[in-house]
Amino acid sequence: MKLSELFLPILKDIPSDAKIKSHQMMLRSGMVRQSAAGIYSWLPLGFKVLKKIELIVREEQDRAGAQEMLMPTIQSADLWKESGRYDGYGLEMLRIKDRQDRELLYGPTNEELITQIFRDNVKSYKSLPLILYHIQWKFRDEIRPRFGVMRGREFLMKDSYSFDETKEGAILSYNKMFYAYLKTFERLGLKAIPLVADTGPIGGDLSHEFVVLAETGESQIYTSKKILDLKIENFDNSEQSLNKMVKAYTETYSATDEKFDQKEFDDLVKKDDQLITRGIEVGHIFYFGDKYSKPMKAVVNSSLGKNITVEMGSYGIGVSRLVGAIIEVNYNNNIMKWPKTVTPFHVAIINLGKKNDETCKNKAQKIYELLKNNSFDVLLDDTEESPASKFKNFDLIGIPYQIIIGSKQEIEQYEFKEVGCEKEILSAQEILKKLKIIYFN
Amino acid sequence: MKLSELFLPILKDIPSDAKIKSHQMMLRSGMVRQSAAGIYSWLPLGFKVLKKIELIVREEQDRAGAQEMLMPTIQSADLWKESGRYDGYGLEMLRIKDRQDRELLYGPTNEELITQIFRDNVKSYKSLPLILYHIQWKFRDEIRPRFGVMRGREFLMKDSYSFDETKEGAILSYNKMFYAYLKTFERLGLKAIPLVADTGPIGGDLSHEFVVLAETGESQIYTSKKILDLKIENFDNSEQSLNKMVKAYTETYSATDEKFDQKEFDDLVKKDDQLITRGIEVGHIFYFGDKYSKPMKAVVNSSLGKNITVEMGSYGIGVSRLVGAIIEVNYNNNIMKWPKTVTPFHVAIINLGKKNDETCKNKAQKIYELLKNNSFDVLLDDTEESPASKFKNFDLIGIPYQIIIGSKQEIEQYEFKEVGCEKEILSAQEILKKLKIIYFN
Repeated sequence: MKLSELFLPILKDIPSDAKIKSHQMMLRSGMVRQSAAGIYSWLPLGFKVLKKIELIVREEQDRAGAQEMLMPTIQSADLWKESGRYDGYGLEMLRIKDRQDRELLYGPTNEELITQIFRDNVKSYKSLPLILYHIQWKFRDEIRPRFGVMRGREFLMKDSYSFDETKEGAILSYNKMFYAYLKTFERLGLKAIPLVADTGPIGGDLSHEFVVLAETGESQIYTSKKILDLKIENFDNSEQSLNKMVKAYTETYSATDEKFDQKEFDDLVKKDDQLITRGIEVGHIFYFGDKYSKPMKAVVNSSLGKNITVEMGSYGIGVSRLVGAIIEVNYNNNIMKWPKTVTPFHVAIINLGKKNDETCKNKAQKIYELLKNNSFDVLLDDTEESPASKFKNFDLIGIPYQIIIGSKQEIEQYEFKEVGCEKEILSAQEILKKLKIIYFN
Repeated sequence: MKLSELFLPILKDIPSDAKIKSHQMMLRSGMVRQSAAGIYSWLPLGFKVLKKIELIVREEQDRAGAQEMLMPTIQSADLWKESGRYDGYGLEMLRIKDRQDRELLYGPTNEELITQIFRDNVKSYKSLPLILYHIQWKFRDEIRPRFGVMRGREFLMKDSYSFDETKEGAILSYNKMFYAYLKTFERLGLKAIPLVADTGPIGGDLSHEFVVLAETGESQIYTSKKILDLKIENFDNSEQSLNKMVKAYTETYSATDEKFDQKEFDDLVKKDDQLITRGIEVGHIFYFGDKYSKPMKAVVNSSLGKNITVEMGSYGIGVSRLVGAIIEVNYNNNIMKWPKTVTPFHVAIINLGKKNDETCKNKAQKIYELLKNNSFDVLLDDTEESPASKFKNFDLIGIPYQIIIGSKQEIEQYEFKEVGCEKEILSAQEILKKLKIIYFN
């Protein structure tokens, strides 16, 4: 894509209402625009990143054996009355009446709706275990939406729901999601740790939240440096390995300030290993047994021939929030560097030649086409802005690799640079080879 | 995927509330379930088809130079007051109040919101022409939702918006979308024709609707057989070819019953060429100049240095509705056959061997793995239902190619069948070669 054609409204100044760096960066780089309080439009640059994150979330859900579907945004209030959550959910629920005065709501989460779908369509244990998920927009009417997409009202969430015959089965499904979550966050270039969590309005017996470590995070985190040494690639999806994995990740003391206990921390974590940092919640998983299946009568015929209430869990990832979390981690000193798995473009070509410098223009065009023909998604800066202004823009856009073209270079040579690293002088073919290893290996 | 693991609740009986065949088929084959009046959940089979249609729509938009973004589902009522449409839109608009009593609405279309985004971010003709689009759920509070996803309340729409400096530019953008639409419908295996249309609540000066010819369609269509001989591949995206293309497709008389005039029809279409059939509207395009940009003050600095109001058009495709339209065309005598571009699976493997027939099981498993390893999306029927019941299920699922395994076959031979065609006896390698040509050529 050529920058002159991309709809990318970059702002020179930091918008005064943006208090945290991801919010500032997303507005300045033209990733999003606020359309109403806490409700955002995703412009092409932001949309590309959002889609890449969504794809990684999807791939890891599929790999865990979860099946994708799609529930609507608007739900009937009746379902929530059945589960008993309608009155208790409070003002965060966006309640709606249609033209026939029927009570609807904009789904803030989907336990009720998925339980209804299960109840109406599954009758036998033979269809179990079953994990269903969808990636859909949700709405929570926050009293004070803030921090851009980090605490918006309309937000994109991946939510999965597991159905099992027994509690043991349900814990296995829980552990599969635990694993899928750690794999997902790792592929997004994030250090995420699980923390024992309160179950809140979802309810249930067992719950972990996944928190990305970031100095600018919303909550204080107390943990051990040792948890950072754990590698998810040392585990696999087998039941035995899953048990080991959950044990390894949860035997370390980790807590948010809400649950923090200094004595316990000192007892369980050696002084030298203690890590006090901040974090951003990006995922939350719940095992809640029959909390929904019982009042809503989601019953199946068991392998023993009895009618049993199905065992359930639910598992959420904040997809749009992850965009903000990744920026909080990777935007430093006004320079953004996207992890290569989610970068909006693979590589930037920045032509610093003067307006009439046809040699530079041809050089830029040549490598642009070479890379495009090799399936790279390339952003070519063909504008007439000053070099300083171009570099400033790319500091915001955050593409991790840059090819720089200037009038003083040899004709067959390009400057190639990974953001934050030393530049190299390479031929077009050398750059192609390098990028293939980086992205397609 | 193995059928025993797929969440695919097939219904034996035709649901009594489903009046048209696509609605019946989607419920029976477990593609969707109604979650509230006119609001559907897409189960895995339906979701797969929906996503494939979405992808083709997206590819043709991208090819036309449109840039994808994503606007939220919830909009502020203020914008609609600015354009003057808030009061007039009527009861079909789902109007909402949030906890702070602010007036919101669930977007039925996005002219206002995109005009606001354009106005706030584009100041110069240098950013033009610009076509932006998104694929997002919309809501229209139909008084009597019916026909399943064909006239639901929450529905998936692709809507594009073009911005140009001049009327000529706007017509060129319009023609680009005209072309992209015909390409899109052709790739979906549909015969779609453009009809001059009323502009309705969108407004404007020029409008075409795109109607898929289907005997079960909602409206009567009068046209000429000659329009079916036109081939979109004879045209390209250049301005000259676009003009020829629009002329070719619009010089034939085509009208719905609303606009039909018998005398005009007889005058313009020879008796032998007259085609009277039915159709389903799947797309609608509008050129409306400054209808929104004027009241909402979307002004840019023109190439002549003057402030001008931008020229706009909008372009919609009913993505979820297309699922129904494709079924209306391709589901006949209780047998579905998906076009290969949108089929939920590339090929079905139907094992007719008895429960303990290990030879059949191994044969099925062998070709299943061969095809999976070659990037095919395969559905293997590993259930223990009767052959008659299996065939009945696959008549509903509609995968266009079947591999049938039975105990009387030679060990290296498989029965291969395109739905509606003669069966062939082939080896696994021959089947692989055939499928590669069908799908990946």
